[in-house]
Amino acid sequence: MIAYLNEQFAPADSLFISPDDRGFLFADGVYEVILLVKQALFHLDDHLARLDGNLQALKIAAPKGLEEICRKLVDVNQPASDYSTLYIQVTRGAAPRNHRFPERSVQPTVYAKLSPITRAEAEISGCKVVLVDDIRWGRCDIKTTNLLANVLAVQQAADAGADEAVFVREGSITEGAHTNFAAVFDGALYTHPLDHRILPGITRGIVMGLCQELGIPVREEAIRSADLSTAAECMLFGTTKIITPVIQVDEAPIADGRPGRITQVLQQSFEQLLLKTAEDER
Amino acid sequence: MIAYLNEQFAPADSLFISPDDRGFLFADGVYEVILLVKQALFHLDDHLARLDGNLQALKIAAPKGLEEICRKLVDVNQPASDYSTLYIQVTRGAAPRNHRFPERSVQPTVYAKLSPITRAEAEISGCKVVLVDDIRWGRCDIKTTNLLANVLAVQQAADAGADEAVFVREGSITEGAHTNFAAVFDGALYTHPLDHRILPGITRGIVMGLCQELGIPVREEAIRSADLSTAAECMLFGTTKIITPVIQVDEAPIADGRPGRITQVLQQSFEQLLLKTAEDER
Repeated sequence: MIAYLNEQFAPADSLFISPDDRGFLFADGVYEVILLVKQALFHLDDHLARLDGNLQALKIAAPKGLEEICRKLVDVNQPASDYSTLYIQVTRGAAPRNHRFPERSVQPTVYAKLSPITRAEAEISGCKVVLVDDIRWGRCDIKTTNLLANVLAVQQAADAGADEAVFVREGSITEGAHTNFAAVFDGALYTHPLDHRILPGITRGIVMGLCQELGIPVREEAIRSADLSTAAECMLFGTTKIITPVIQVDEAPIADGRPGRITQVLQQSFEQLLLKTAEDER
Repeated sequence: MIAYLNEQFAPADSLFISPDDRGFLFADGVYEVILLVKQALFHLDDHLARLDGNLQALKIAAPKGLEEICRKLVDVNQPASDYSTLYIQVTRGAAPRNHRFPERSVQPTVYAKLSPITRAEAEISGCKVVLVDDIRWGRCDIKTTNLLANVLAVQQAADAGADEAVFVREGSITEGAHTNFAAVFDGALYTHPLDHRILPGITRGIVMGLCQELGIPVREEAIRSADLSTAAECMLFGTTKIITPVIQVDEAPIADGRPGRITQVLQQSFEQLLLKTAEDER
């Protein structure tokens, strides 16, 4: 597999960075995970626009040619699997350790890599999540590598035999540790509004567009964790989990413990988008 | 300068890590900055004990021989400057990107490096700080590389012509972005109690011991930021800032805008400890 690092396309295991990279020392960087359907990059523009916004938020100079890097990485690897991810990370670069931003002459580090993935069986059967106290920082809307709280939460979920940790802050559900979260009450889809507490997920945005087309009402309101026991359906949105039904929260099943109707309708519509992406590329 | 990375002592600019290191992808690591007085490591045991506790908190397997690595790094470099720092970072190692902890066979990454430093003139003249909203995560007691909020705060301070950002959470001062904070009211030293909101600073601990010896009362209580205008003295504690007087907070001078008496008494006592460390090593 060929990966990309700082103007070089080369075998992934031959690429190395300085331990003085600010990504390594300070988590001073941002990233995207983009879904590849065969060789088509799904919503690449949306991911690159978000990446650009996040670089601006951190005042990291935007490297040129990120779209070309993504496209060339696909071209040179010609991935054979039905689905892959393209991971791309940009940091403020390598410099002697100092919290302050380095001099402008320091170039950002750009790293990008493809990984084949398998669609999870949980997309059909549903998954279990655990609720975890949301102790993350106050800018969860920026997709940074400042991810230690997410790592610890996902491991806590795994230790409990669950697939995802869902964060609760002041009694309200914010989002999953690497997904957005939504629940259905009275036929409407509820999900946390866009603010500093959640990531503006690309999949979340696409699903909200589908809801509009399908006539499913959407309410961008925080869900109280105490109300989950009365939810008709729960689901996760994300680049790799796509739309995954949640059938159990901690020890309690959601409704009858099976994927719900609205979840399945959304999944079918989303699948059409994925198929269309792959066909358009051909 | 010889640095250390994963069992190798070599010139610093010849050492490289994988971009799939979890330190780079997830900020999944901890670190220490240890003061070197000539060739003596100041309170090395305390730093290594804290590092060990932090590794346990994150469930990262403690690498063996960290003390030997630190001592050998000093031996092979024989730093000529009066003061240096030894930076040591341990991450959960390099593995294919997945929030969950990797398999146990993945070895932690250990990186260590010396840097000569100059004692700042601000230790004598005092420094300016700015107050910044504390948006960090909920486990500031663990010294992790999850430092992006600290980076942004220090840069905000620099942009305002200040030396440090001091965090305020819910109206109370927690600590500086890379220091602990204390203030004097009615002859007593006030500083935030040890909890999840602040780092248990080594310098902070030493200063509290000095206060006991010198008969200076210590109150481990949160200081309201609104009360700073009535403080007789303010100061920062840290490995590189040692004890630095704070003479201005945002646009307001502290007391008469000059380093205070208790600050100076503590500085003199601390200086004796530094001298003794260097002498004991000889």
